[in-house]
Amino acid sequence: MDERLDWIAVDWGSTRIRAVALGPEGVIATAEAANTAHPGAAGHEAALADLIGGWLAPGRATLVIACGMVGARHGWTEAKYRAVPAGTDPAEALVRAPAADPRLDLRIVPGLSQDRPADVMRGEETQIAGFIAGNPDFDGVICLPGTHSKWARVSAGEVVGFRTAMTGELFALLSTQSVLRHEMAPEGEDPEAFLDGVSRALSRPERLATELFSIRAEGLLHGLAPRAARSRLSGLLIGAELAAMRPFWLGQRVAVVGAPGVAAAYAQALGAQGVAAECAEGADMVLAGLAMIRARIRSARA
Amino acid sequence: MDERLDWIAVDWGSTRIRAVALGPEGVIATAEAANTAHPGAAGHEAALADLIGGWLAPGRATLVIACGMVGARHGWTEAKYRAVPAGTDPAEALVRAPAADPRLDLRIVPGLSQDRPADVMRGEETQIAGFIAGNPDFDGVICLPGTHSKWARVSAGEVVGFRTAMTGELFALLSTQSVLRHEMAPEGEDPEAFLDGVSRALSRPERLATELFSIRAEGLLHGLAPRAARSRLSGLLIGAELAAMRPFWLGQRVAVVGAPGVAAAYAQALGAQGVAAECAEGADMVLAGLAMIRARIRSARA
Repeated sequence: MDERLDWIAVDWGSTRIRAVALGPEGVIATAEAANTAHPGAAGHEAALADLIGGWLAPGRATLVIACGMVGARHGWTEAKYRAVPAGTDPAEALVRAPAADPRLDLRIVPGLSQDRPADVMRGEETQIAGFIAGNPDFDGVICLPGTHSKWARVSAGEVVGFRTAMTGELFALLSTQSVLRHEMAPEGEDPEAFLDGVSRALSRPERLATELFSIRAEGLLHGLAPRAARSRLSGLLIGAELAAMRPFWLGQRVAVVGAPGVAAAYAQALGAQGVAAECAEGADMVLAGLAMIRARIRSARA
Repeated sequence: MDERLDWIAVDWGSTRIRAVALGPEGVIATAEAANTAHPGAAGHEAALADLIGGWLAPGRATLVIACGMVGARHGWTEAKYRAVPAGTDPAEALVRAPAADPRLDLRIVPGLSQDRPADVMRGEETQIAGFIAGNPDFDGVICLPGTHSKWARVSAGEVVGFRTAMTGELFALLSTQSVLRHEMAPEGEDPEAFLDGVSRALSRPERLATELFSIRAEGLLHGLAPRAARSRLSGLLIGAELAAMRPFWLGQRVAVVGAPGVAAAYAQALGAQGVAAECAEGADMVLAGLAMIRARIRSARA
């Protein structure tokens, strides 16, 4: 409990929940936990109470603005998707969520949906809002790599369309649970093997099915190094994503918003295709997006 | 223990071990278990004893011919790969394996390897041998769908080259462990959704990365039926395999050797591309291959 507390920002991902307590002069405290919330409002409220209950002052309702899976069908309360084309600023579409604890005034940021081709996002729309808040004239494509990588076309303050690739999830499954795990180092990078994988996948995307098993065979027959195997897999999957997303990045202005390591890998892969992407830190952009919404609520009240 | 017992055929897969006891007039008994063998000779001998120990007569060594993972580096004893091009008949390359039990006379069928592009198989070479034993004039391509699907070019009694796609393993991981599992029926088929998936993957193979997540999004937004979702995933992955293997099947004679359900799915997918594939039952082909080897040993002794 801190007297300076003004509001709390929550990034509710499918695997992690990250909360930031903010006052007039910025960050007061941060907290993070695995997302182990049970489906529904009670389960989610219990998980949030574990994380930030100690920050809340008695006798008043603290504003909490949350984005991500908290607004999914089995989340706290469903925040229906906004359909694209949609403004990058989601402030007017916030959904109030019921809370048993009177100290909570919870607002959920809805995700975005696209009818054809069918696609959805929850959480990334807030990173996009944060990026655009800092780059209001941006016209181009925002790539948000992750478990489910998103590519969004942004023009004139609107998300025009977007697509998702399951690259991060595929990498996790293949590197830890498939036969390829026998060839993999648990960490480490081999930049040459990474770019080789990107190039293979981009030049012959139809061969992905066989390129993956080649990692196993080259380990058995030619002693492919475990670190090179890991980077090759990463390169093949990111290359396959770039192949699918070519209409998004070819000849476009591209910004990569994500965790520094993975954003740098995407920027490197794009750079090898002649695209000079700018990078922004994903966690900063979530906070910037939520802070922009906070400011809009304040000005609406004023 | 059966007086008619002449020899035992063993198909030692990475997940299952299947044994068949054979006499002069054919099959006497069958046994099957999960492959839980510990690495090395002792671990594998213990697993085999559990499965077929009761079949062995005291005081004499029974011939056991085994193919598959039993000959891998961490198997019973390593049976080094034969490099392609290699004859389809592996009888002369059998590897004797040491056994503590004097009732065992174990011979292991070596797998095949290919230097560039690097590839390996263990077990499928025996199915190929069995198929060619029954179709000695076959000249074309044998497709062996499974956890790791193999496509082998066979000409003039030789395996000329082959490639592997991890299709079965990808399907298992994506349908049971990825976010797509929420959309999937545990079983059942939707032939139209299957062929639609094949067609999507074959016509735009570079889009696979986004097509996979579309299954999730169409479930959330458009109520894609769980059975259709499962068949779409299967179709996309088999279509991606066909895209990678196009040089193998385009304008070629193709035989599909595998379990009836999956072989029929591949034949259907190939049929939609104008390729009339013949089908053969994988378990029968393993047994035919091992029986052919048994006959070659007998004639060598005579």
